[in-house]
Amino acid sequence: MRYGPQDSMQAPRFTGPRTFMRLPSKATLEDVDVAVVGVPTDSAVSFRPGARFGPEGIRSASILLRDYNPILEVSVPEVLSMVDYGDAPTVPGYHLESLARIESFLSPIQAAGVVPLVLGGDHSLTIASLRAAAATHGPVAVVHIDAHADVLDSYYGVAHFHGTVFRRAVEEGLVDPSCSLQAGMRGSLHPGDLLGGAAFGYEVIWWEELRQMSPEQFGQAVRRRVGDRPVVVSFDIDFVDPAFAPGTGTPEPGGPTSYEALSYVRSLGAMNYVGLECVEVAPSLDPTGVTLNLASSVCFELLSLLALSRRR
Amino acid sequence: MRYGPQDSMQAPRFTGPRTFMRLPSKATLEDVDVAVVGVPTDSAVSFRPGARFGPEGIRSASILLRDYNPILEVSVPEVLSMVDYGDAPTVPGYHLESLARIESFLSPIQAAGVVPLVLGGDHSLTIASLRAAAATHGPVAVVHIDAHADVLDSYYGVAHFHGTVFRRAVEEGLVDPSCSLQAGMRGSLHPGDLLGGAAFGYEVIWWEELRQMSPEQFGQAVRRRVGDRPVVVSFDIDFVDPAFAPGTGTPEPGGPTSYEALSYVRSLGAMNYVGLECVEVAPSLDPTGVTLNLASSVCFELLSLLALSRRR
Amino acid sequence: MRYGPQDSMQAPRFTGPRTFMRLPSKATLEDVDVAVVGVPTDSAVSFRPGARFGPEGIRSASILLRDYNPILEVSVPEVLSMVDYGDAPTVPGYHLESLARIESFLSPIQAAGVVPLVLGGDHSLTIASLRAAAATHGPVAVVHIDAHADVLDSYYGVAHFHGTVFRRAVEEGLVDPSCSLQAGMRGSLHPGDLLGGAAFGYEVIWWEELRQMSPEQFGQAVRRRVGDRPVVVSFDIDFVDPAFAPGTGTPEPGGPTSYEALSYVRSLGAMNYVGLECVEVAPSLDPTGVTLNLASSVCFELLSLLALSRRR
Amino acid sequence: MRYGPQDSMQAPRFTGPRTFMRLPSKATLEDVDVAVVGVPTDSAVSFRPGARFGPEGIRSASILLRDYNPILEVSVPEVLSMVDYGDAPTVPGYHLESLARIESFLSPIQAAGVVPLVLGGDHSLTIASLRAAAATHGPVAVVHIDAHADVLDSYYGVAHFHGTVFRRAVEEGLVDPSCSLQAGMRGSLHPGDLLGGAAFGYEVIWWEELRQMSPEQFGQAVRRRVGDRPVVVSFDIDFVDPAFAPGTGTPEPGGPTSYEALSYVRSLGAMNYVGLECVEVAPSLDPTGVTLNLASSVCFELLSLLALSRRR
Amino acid sequence: MRYGPQDSMQAPRFTGPRTFMRLPSKATLEDVDVAVVGVPTDSAVSFRPGARFGPEGIRSASILLRDYNPILEVSVPEVLSMVDYGDAPTVPGYHLESLARIESFLSPIQAAGVVPLVLGGDHSLTIASLRAAAATHGPVAVVHIDAHADVLDSYYGVAHFHGTVFRRAVEEGLVDPSCSLQAGMRGSLHPGDLLGGAAFGYEVIWWEELRQMSPEQFGQAVRRRVGDRPVVVSFDIDFVDPAFAPGTGTPEPGGPTSYEALSYVRSLGAMNYVGLECVEVAPSLDPTGVTLNLASSVCFELLSLLALSRRR
Amino acid sequence: MRYGPQDSMQAPRFTGPRTFMRLPSKATLEDVDVAVVGVPTDSAVSFRPGARFGPEGIRSASILLRDYNPILEVSVPEVLSMVDYGDAPTVPGYHLESLARIESFLSPIQAAGVVPLVLGGDHSLTIASLRAAAATHGPVAVVHIDAHADVLDSYYGVAHFHGTVFRRAVEEGLVDPSCSLQAGMRGSLHPGDLLGGAAFGYEVIWWEELRQMSPEQFGQAVRRRVGDRPVVVSFDIDFVDPAFAPGTGTPEPGGPTSYEALSYVRSLGAMNYVGLECVEVAPSLDPTGVTLNLASSVCFELLSLLALSRRR
Repeated sequence: MRYGPQDSMQAPRFTGPRTFMRLPSKATLEDVDVAVVGVPTDSAVSFRPGARFGPEGIRSASILLRDYNPILEVSVPEVLSMVDYGDAPTVPGYHLESLARIESFLSPIQAAGVVPLVLGGDHSLTIASLRAAAATHGPVAVVHIDAHADVLDSYYGVAHFHGTVFRRAVEEGLVDPSCSLQAGMRGSLHPGDLLGGAAFGYEVIWWEELRQMSPEQFGQAVRRRVGDRPVVVSFDIDFVDPAFAPGTGTPEPGGPTSYEALSYVRSLGAMNYVGLECVEVAPSLDPTGVTLNLASSVCFELLSLLALSRRR
Repeated sequence: MRYGPQDSMQAPRFTGPRTFMRLPSKATLEDVDVAVVGVPTDSAVSFRPGARFGPEGIRSASILLRDYNPILEVSVPEVLSMVDYGDAPTVPGYHLESLARIESFLSPIQAAGVVPLVLGGDHSLTIASLRAAAATHGPVAVVHIDAHADVLDSYYGVAHFHGTVFRRAVEEGLVDPSCSLQAGMRGSLHPGDLLGGAAFGYEVIWWEELRQMSPEQFGQAVRRRVGDRPVVVSFDIDFVDPAFAPGTGTPEPGGPTSYEALSYVRSLGAMNYVGLECVEVAPSLDPTGVTLNLASSVCFELLSLLALSRRR
Repeated sequence: MRYGPQDSMQAPRFTGPRTFMRLPSKATLEDVDVAVVGVPTDSAVSFRPGARFGPEGIRSASILLRDYNPILEVSVPEVLSMVDYGDAPTVPGYHLESLARIESFLSPIQAAGVVPLVLGGDHSLTIASLRAAAATHGPVAVVHIDAHADVLDSYYGVAHFHGTVFRRAVEEGLVDPSCSLQAGMRGSLHPGDLLGGAAFGYEVIWWEELRQMSPEQFGQAVRRRVGDRPVVVSFDIDFVDPAFAPGTGTPEPGGPTSYEALSYVRSLGAMNYVGLECVEVAPSLDPTGVTLNLASSVCFELLSLLALSRRR
Repeated sequence: MRYGPQDSMQAPRFTGPRTFMRLPSKATLEDVDVAVVGVPTDSAVSFRPGARFGPEGIRSASILLRDYNPILEVSVPEVLSMVDYGDAPTVPGYHLESLARIESFLSPIQAAGVVPLVLGGDHSLTIASLRAAAATHGPVAVVHIDAHADVLDSYYGVAHFHGTVFRRAVEEGLVDPSCSLQAGMRGSLHPGDLLGGAAFGYEVIWWEELRQMSPEQFGQAVRRRVGDRPVVVSFDIDFVDPAFAPGTGTPEPGGPTSYEALSYVRSLGAMNYVGLECVEVAPSLDPTGVTLNLASSVCFELLSLLALSRRR
Repeated sequence: MRYGPQDSMQAPRFTGPRTFMRLPSKATLEDVDVAVVGVPTDSAVSFRPGARFGPEGIRSASILLRDYNPILEVSVPEVLSMVDYGDAPTVPGYHLESLARIESFLSPIQAAGVVPLVLGGDHSLTIASLRAAAATHGPVAVVHIDAHADVLDSYYGVAHFHGTVFRRAVEEGLVDPSCSLQAGMRGSLHPGDLLGGAAFGYEVIWWEELRQMSPEQFGQAVRRRVGDRPVVVSFDIDFVDPAFAPGTGTPEPGGPTSYEALSYVRSLGAMNYVGLECVEVAPSLDPTGVTLNLASSVCFELLSLLALSRRR
Repeated sequence: MRYGPQDSMQAPRFTGPRTFMRLPSKATLEDVDVAVVGVPTDSAVSFRPGARFGPEGIRSASILLRDYNPILEVSVPEVLSMVDYGDAPTVPGYHLESLARIESFLSPIQAAGVVPLVLGGDHSLTIASLRAAAATHGPVAVVHIDAHADVLDSYYGVAHFHGTVFRRAVEEGLVDPSCSLQAGMRGSLHPGDLLGGAAFGYEVIWWEELRQMSPEQFGQAVRRRVGDRPVVVSFDIDFVDPAFAPGTGTPEPGGPTSYEALSYVRSLGAMNYVGLECVEVAPSLDPTGVTLNLASSVCFELLSLLALSRRR
C-alpha cells in the first residue's frame, strides 16, 4: 500500500478539501515514508504573529505541485509514500505547554522511522521538533537556513522564544553543532548577536558570503559538515528576500531571490534526512500569495532531496 | 454511527486540514443526513469570476462554527449526522460538460435521501443541482434569495449562464413555480428583466418590499407558498449588501445587512428541505474575509433549519 | 442623433476601454443632455489623497449599470442622451491653477445647457464647478450631502481647500444659501464648526436628525427649500458609513448604510438640476471595490432623477 | 498644567509621530485625568492573532479625532487633561507573565486616580486590567459589550485565555457581577456557554434583545444596574458586525452597525468611570482601515462619557 | 494621418478614460501599423481565473509609458501609427465559441497587414490568435516565452485549454515548429510533460538553461531559429517570478526577475513580427499593481521591437 | 547627554508610539548628531500620491532596526546621538508655500551642524531640503539615486514639481553639478529627457551601466566625483524594482533588487555628509509592507555611512 497525490487530470486541482499536495488526510504511519505535519504556533515571537495559519496556507498553495522534479530528475511520489498526517495540538499563549504537546505529537512519527515534513508555525516550534528527533536519533545535525541566527539568550527574561532556538538546542544536547551549519544570516544585529551560532559551535555562512558561493559549492560544504549524521533541515522562509516572501513575521530586506533560495536548497543533495521543516509562513501578511507559493515549492524541493536520498 | 465536528476544546480550531465545520472528510452516504458538497464553478458568469475557490473559502471560515443555534434553539450536530463529501468535478470553460458532471455527482446523494449542502461556485451550477433534485423528488419548490432574478433568456447567444438559471429550471420542468418564490431582487435592470421571475410563475418579493416585511411575515409567506413540497433553498451571497459580502462576482449596492439577511433565512422555519445552497462566494475578491465568514453563517442557519425540521 | 450605452448582450460588460456606463467617449455637446466629466483632483485635502483616480474607478465600476431604475420607474438612456466627455485638466500641487482650468473646462458645458455629471476628485473641485454653474445660471441652489459641512475659514493659512468650499461659495455669491441645504453631518467637530453651514445661511440637517426622517420627508424638505431654482447636487461619498465606502480620504464612522444613502438620494425627485457631482472617491483605499460600486450606483440615481425631471 | 491635542490648523493632522489623538507622549500622572495606555497582547487567543498591533493602529486612526462631541455636547479636551502614557510591557507566548507585567504597569495609574483608556490587545488582557482596578477600588462594576460572553471554564486545559476572562474575574472577586452587565452576545454557541455570564451573576442582554431596545433604554438599564459603583467599560470591537470591523480575531456576522454601536456606547451617560477599554483590534486584518477608524471613534465616545461625568 | 499617444505635458497622465498608452480609442485599420486588442478570456484555465480583466488592467498601467526606448534607441510613436482597437467579444464558459469569435475579430486585422498587440486574457486565446495569423501568413513561427510548455494533450477530457495550446497549434498546422522556440519552462512537471514542446518539434530552452545565456545569446538563438518567417511572440507573464508578477493564474516560483525578463524580450531584435501577445495577467490577484506595470513594460518592449524592425 | 533607541530586550519592539528606530521624540538640536525629520508632501506629483504618509510608514517599519551594521562594521548609536525631531509642516495643494515652510523647518537643523535624515514625502521636497543645506554649506554635492532623472523643465506650465527638482537645483545654484552624480535612471523616456542630468552638468550613470559596476566601483566613482564637498544623498525608493518597492508613486519595472540597492548605498563609504534623504514612499500602495521595510533599511545604511564617516 502506498499513498500519493490525487490525479489532477480527472478533476481540477482546485477541487476538494485542501491537504498537502492533495495527499490523503490520514494519521497513519504504516507504509508511510513521509508524514506531512502542520505545527500551528505563533505565540512566542518578538514581532508579527500569524504563522499559526501557515499550515493552512501552505496546504492551499501546494495543490499546484506536480510529481516530477526536472532538475533533480526524480518523481517524488514514485519514490515516497506520503500522507497528510494533520496538525500538532498547540496552546496559544502557553509556549512551554505547546512545546510539550508538539513533542508528544512528533515523537511517534520519528520513532516509527517516518520523516516528518513540518509546516510551521513560527521557528519556536523547532525546539520541540529537535527534541522528538533527538529522542530517536540522538544529537542530530542541523542545516539551518534563515536570515537570523536565533541564538539569543533570552527575550524579556524568558528562555524559549523564536529567537533562542538554536542556542537552546545545543545547550539541551539535541544538536551536535560540530556537524551543523547555519546559512543566510543578514541585516542589522543585536550587540549580543555578532557571532551568530559560531559562538555555540555551528559553522556559519553569512548571506554576504553565501551569495559568493555557487549552489554546488554550498551543497558540498554542507555535506562535508554533516557527513552521514541524521540531519534535520530547518528552513525559515524569511531567508528569502521579503519581495519573494512578505508573509512572514520578521522580514529582512536584502536577501536572496526565490531562484537563489530554491537552488541552495536543491544543492543539498542526498543525505540522511530525518526531519524537514519550512517555518515562519504567515498567510494574513501575504495578500498576493507569493509566500505560500514559494513555501510549497521549498517543501517540494525538500521532499525531492529525500526522494533522491532514498533512491540511492 | 454518526458524524459530527471535531472537539475544539482539545486542539484549537485552526488545527488540521480545513473541512466544513471540522466534519470528517468522507464520501459516504451511509448513516448520513447531510453531505456537504463543494461545486467549484465560475466559468459561465457575466462579470467577475473567482467562485471556483468558494468551497475552499467557506470551509476555511466554517471552522469557527459552534454547535448550538441560540435563536432557533437547536444543536445542529445533535440532530444531524454530517460529512464533508468533497467536491463535484467540473470542466472550466465547458459549461454544459460541467453541468453534466455536477448532476452525476449530486444525483446519488439525492437518491440516497441525503440532503446536499452545496457550497458554490457561481449560480450557473444550480441547474445541475435542480436536475439532481428533480430526478429523485419530481418538480421541486424553490426558495431563491438573491439580488438578481436570473431569468434572462440568453447571454451572447447561449442558453445556460448564471443569469438564466431560474427560467431554464421552469422550462425544463425541474421547478414548480407555483409553489416557488424569489426574494431580494434590486438594482438597475435590463429592459427584458422588469418582471423578474413573475413572468414565469414565481412569486417575487422585491427587496424594496421585503424590507417592509418582518422576518416572521416573510417566513409565513414562504411556508404558505411552499407547503409540504420538497424544497430547495438557493441563497446567492450577493443578496446581502456588498459591504457585508464584497467577495462576489456581481455586487449590487443597497442591499440588506448581514443581520437582516440571517434573520430572513432563519425565519423560513421547518419545511421539507431536500437541497441547500450558498453560491457566488469568491475568496479572491474578499481581502477582509467577511464574505466567507458570512457565507459560513448562512450555511449554519440553513443546517439549523433542517435540524429544526427533522426534530419535529 | 442620441448617445447611449453599448449593448451588453452582444459582448460581455467587461470588454473594451472603460467609459462611464459604457457610453461613447466623445467630447461633444451637440444632441447631448448629460456630459459625464472626470475631475481628478486630490491635492488640497487635509488627510488621505487618492481621489485623482476616482474618475477611473467610477468608470470601471459603472459598466455594471443597466438601463432601468425600477423604483423611480424610468429608463435613463431612453430619456437622456449621454456621453463620456473626458476629464478636466488639473495641476497637482497648484490648487488655484487647477480651479481655473476646471472652471474653463466646465463652463462651455454649462453654457450649452448640458448637465455635467462630475466624477471626483476631492471636494475642493466644487468651487470651480459652482463657478461654472453660476456663470450660466446665476447663484444656484445646492443640495450638499456629506458627513462634513466643509465651511471652515481656512487651513494652515490658505482659503481654498476641501473643507472650506461651501463657505467660500456663499462668499463668492455662487450659491444662494436661502434655497440650499446641507444634510448628513456627523462626527467629532472642530470648535469653529459647531453650527455647520447654518452660520452662512444654509439649512442644515445633521445625520442624527436626518435618520429620523423618512426619505419621503427628506425629499419634501429639499424640494420645499429649493423650489424651482437651478440646483446642483453635490454628493460626498463619505456621507455613507466607511463600511460601505472605505475608499475615501476622511472616513467618518457611524453613518448611513448604502440602502439609506441611495434612498435619500432617490427621494429628491424632480427638480431643475443643472449639476450633479459624486466626489471623494479614492480607489487605492478601496481594496474590495465596494466604494466604486456604490459611487456608480449613486451616479445612476442622480441620472435617474434628471431623467425623471426631464420626462415631466 | 493641562495636556491636550496639538492644533491641527497649524500643521496637517498627518504630521509627526502618531500618539493617541495627537496628545503629548508622556508617562506622567501629574495633572492628568486620563492616561491612554496601549496593551499589546494577542497570545492567548483561540483564533486569529494580530491585536498586539492594535495600539499602533488605533493611535494612527485617532489623529482624525476633533475636540467636540456634538451629540453629548461636550468638548473632551476642555474637561479632561490627557496624555499618551505609552504601552504596557508584555511577554508574547507567556500569558501569565504578561498579565503580571500589565497589572504592574496599570496599578500606579489606578492608584493615582487617573483613568486609564486601554487600547488592546486581545481581551485576555482584561483580567490584568481588572486586577489593577480592583486593587484601588475594590470589586468593580463592569459593562462588557461584546459578541461573546467570554465565560468559558478553560481552553485546551488552561484557565487564562481571551474566552475565560469574565468568569475568572468573578471567581477572583475583582468584579461584582450583581452590578455588572454583558451586552451584545450572539452567534453559534459552545454547549457549555448557553447562559453566558448569567451563570455567574451578570445581567446578560443578548444582541437579539439589545436591538429591540433604544439606546436610551439601554443606558437606563445599565445605570440602574451599575449605580454609583466604580465602573469599567470593556468594549470588544467584535461586538460590531464584521463589515464595520473586519480587523478582529473572532469575527461574528449578524451584529450591529457602527451607528448602532456608537449609539449604545453614547447612551451610557454619566457614571463613576474608573477604566475604559477598547480591545481585539487587529490592524493586519483590516486592509481598508475601517476597524481602526471605528475603534478610535469608540474611544472618543468613551472619553466623552468620562468628560460628561466629570463636568457634572 | 497617424495615431499616437496624447500629450502628457498638457494634462496629467491620470486624466481621461484609459486606453492603451493613451492612444485614440478607434476601431480603424486605415493608416494604422498596430492595433492594440484586448482579448478578455479566462474560462478554460486549470487554476485561478481573473485574466478577463487583464486588458483593463494593462491599459490602466500603460498610461505611464513614455515614447522613447533608450536601450533600443527608438521612439515608438515616431515609427508606428497605433490605435486602441477595443476588445474581442468572448463567451465565458463556452470556450470553443469564444475561440471562433476571437478569430473572427482578429482575422481582418491580420488581413489588413496590421500587427495586433494582444492584451490577454489567458493563454487559451492563443489558438484563435494563431488561426487568424496563419490564415493570412500561413504557418507562422512562434517565440513562446512562458514558465509552462502548454503542450498537454487534454484536461478532464477536453482538447482546448490554456495548457494545450502549443500542441494543438502544431497539430492544426498553424505553427511551423521547426522555426519556433519555447523558452523559460520550469517548476514541477506532469509525468506527460517531461519534454515540453520538444516532443512536437519546438526548440526548448528551459529556464535553467536560459539563465546561463546572455540576452544577446538568446536573441541570436531566436533569430537563427526564426529567420525571415512571419513570427508571433507570445509572452506569458508567469514567465517572470511571482514576486514580480503575482497577478497571474498559475504562478511558478523560481523564475527570472523583471530586469532579466525585459532584457530577454529586448534581445529579440528586428524580425518579421506579425503578432505580439502578453497574456495571463489577472488584476484581481495583483493588489500592488506590479504585474500590470510589468505587463505594460513588456508590451512597450514588444512595440519597440516592431518599431526597430520597421525602421530598418 | 546622548540620545539613542530604547532597549528592545525589556519590552517588545512593538510597544509604544512609533518613532524612528524607537528614538526619543524630541525637537532638540543640542547634543544631537542626527535629527530624523518627516517631510509629508505628495501634492506636486504627476501620478499616484500617498507619500504624505511615508514618514508614518517608515517610522513604523524602523522599529525592527537593531544597532550594529555587520558589513560596515559599525554600531550606529554608539557613534551617533539621534532624535526623532518630528515633521515639517506642509500645505497640501500649495506646493510653493509648502516648500517655504519646509525650508524654514530644516534651516535651523543645518545651521546647528546637525545632519537631517529626511523621511519623505515625494521628491518635490528636495528643492527645499537643498535650499536649507546650501544656506549653511554653499552649493553642495548631490548623490541622486533614482529611476528617474527629475530634470524636466516644467509640467502643465509650472516649474516646481517632483520631476523638475534636479534641474531647478542647478539653476538656483544650490548644487554644484560638477561634483554631483545621478545613478539608476531607466525606463521609457520623454523626448525632452534623453540626456538626463548630463545636460545640466551632472555625471549620469544609467541603470544599464550601473548594473555592470560592482558596488566597490560605484563607491569609488562617487567618491572621486564628490571629493570633500558637503554632500547630500537623495535616495528615491523607486530606484529599486517595484517588486521590492511597490509602495511608490511612479514605479518603473526592470530595476535593481533590494540586495543590489542596499549594496550600492553601502558602497558610498565615508564622505562629508550634510543631508540624507529617503523619498517617494507611499504606504497605502504597499499592502505587504515590503517598501516600508526596505526604506527603513536604506535609512539604516545611510546612518551607518554617516557613523562610519564620523568615526574616522
